[in-house]
Amino acid sequence: MIDHTNNPNAAIIIIGNEILSGRTVDQNLPFLAKALCEIGITLQEARTIADDEQSIINTINEYRANYEYVFTSGGIGPTHDDVTTSCVAKAFNKPLVLNAEAKRRLTSNYTNEEMNEARLKMAHVPEGATLIDNPISAAPGFRVENVYVMAGVPSILQAMFNGIRNHLRSGPVTVSRSITANIPEGLIATPLANLQNRNRDVEIGSYPFFRDGESGATFVLRCTDVDRLLSVLESLKRLVRDLGHEPFEEDRF
Amino acid sequence: MIDHTNNPNAAIIIIGNEILSGRTVDQNLPFLAKALCEIGITLQEARTIADDEQSIINTINEYRANYEYVFTSGGIGPTHDDVTTSCVAKAFNKPLVLNAEAKRRLTSNYTNEEMNEARLKMAHVPEGATLIDNPISAAPGFRVENVYVMAGVPSILQAMFNGIRNHLRSGPVTVSRSITANIPEGLIATPLANLQNRNRDVEIGSYPFFRDGESGATFVLRCTDVDRLLSVLESLKRLVRDLGHEPFEEDRF
Repeated sequence: MIDHTNNPNAAIIIIGNEILSGRTVDQNLPFLAKALCEIGITLQEARTIADDEQSIINTINEYRANYEYVFTSGGIGPTHDDVTTSCVAKAFNKPLVLNAEAKRRLTSNYTNEEMNEARLKMAHVPEGATLIDNPISAAPGFRVENVYVMAGVPSILQAMFNGIRNHLRSGPVTVSRSITANIPEGLIATPLANLQNRNRDVEIGSYPFFRDGESGATFVLRCTDVDRLLSVLESLKRLVRDLGHEPFEEDRF
Repeated sequence: MIDHTNNPNAAIIIIGNEILSGRTVDQNLPFLAKALCEIGITLQEARTIADDEQSIINTINEYRANYEYVFTSGGIGPTHDDVTTSCVAKAFNKPLVLNAEAKRRLTSNYTNEEMNEARLKMAHVPEGATLIDNPISAAPGFRVENVYVMAGVPSILQAMFNGIRNHLRSGPVTVSRSITANIPEGLIATPLANLQNRNRDVEIGSYPFFRDGESGATFVLRCTDVDRLLSVLESLKRLVRDLGHEPFEEDRF
């Protein structure tokens, strides 16, 4: 609905058996979704996949051909279940090579006797990759072309992303306002659709809730133009009041 | 790693712009991932996509051909941004028809004057669909062949799934144990890989953490055979102790 033609787009790959088995609740998609929105990059899709070589390679190749930015989370550590780095190399048909700067960062983080083959694995990246800084545990992420490969540990992923966000091409930022009312969706649905049709540049989402037998909805308006957003917001408030309910404006998110 | 050949598999489609924009943190994937694991259905993949007709149709058609079960969340309400039901009909090339039982349930939930076209939209399902009960707000979900279409509101999705879970084909249940130790992953990676290679029927995952400058990891073992699981767990504890660290067993999850 929003005209995203001026916005770069992106897709996210969350890699990890622990998410699909329900053991771990992923925090990286919510973080990246919000962070990308803040800099005007449109997140189009996200996929959660297993630590499975073919799934990872296929998803990387599908996404990198279709989106300006691809971000991956998980699978770049030293253990046997960390297969993302080798899969990225295979997807790009590049060899894994020892990166001297990555080795330097790891070496400075460990004593000589602590340095071993498993840790050195984290200094290997696909040929031609650019490193992504890891201020928490040294072992870097990396970028190959439009694919940004980051750690699965949320604090590390966040630090990595915060280090690269200023280097990404940003677009017009979508601003958002929402109002909530104890109005059942079914009562407002038709006039709301009309409001949406008359204002196609402002995306109107309706999110119902059911609490203690009461039903209501939060209406979220999104647009890159604040004036247009506020104008449609006023129309929506009138609509809710005309139907006998009182809207209350929520904090900007 | 685990031999899942006896387990039904599944994929999940989370539908909603609000998840991709970072406004809403999805709760349905974590719930379904855990619930499917508990009944021995292997979740292979999950996709988060926008309220976009072509994305929804393509994903449904790709998934229903590849997985025994497909579960969708979101987009079945009365408002203009609820497009999932019509997309499922298009994916299956079936017309949308008024379902008499769905209409009865909705009618009994509303007075005559409350019943309107928008609410009646929720009584329309693809021809031949089976209803999925909604004990919270009446408007049902539905199933077409192997595709289960559920609401996005977490409490409703959970109630819907709990109503159908006993009708799904379950498989051998994967049991899980985990231990945690303040051992850096890089120190244990090689012997851990050897342990995994010697015991390919028990999946060993390693999940690092970094707290207050200390690094450690949780090791998660998963298998359908409890005796095998406990045997490998003992080997892993010995391994951690041999490397000079003390493992502590975590609660079963």
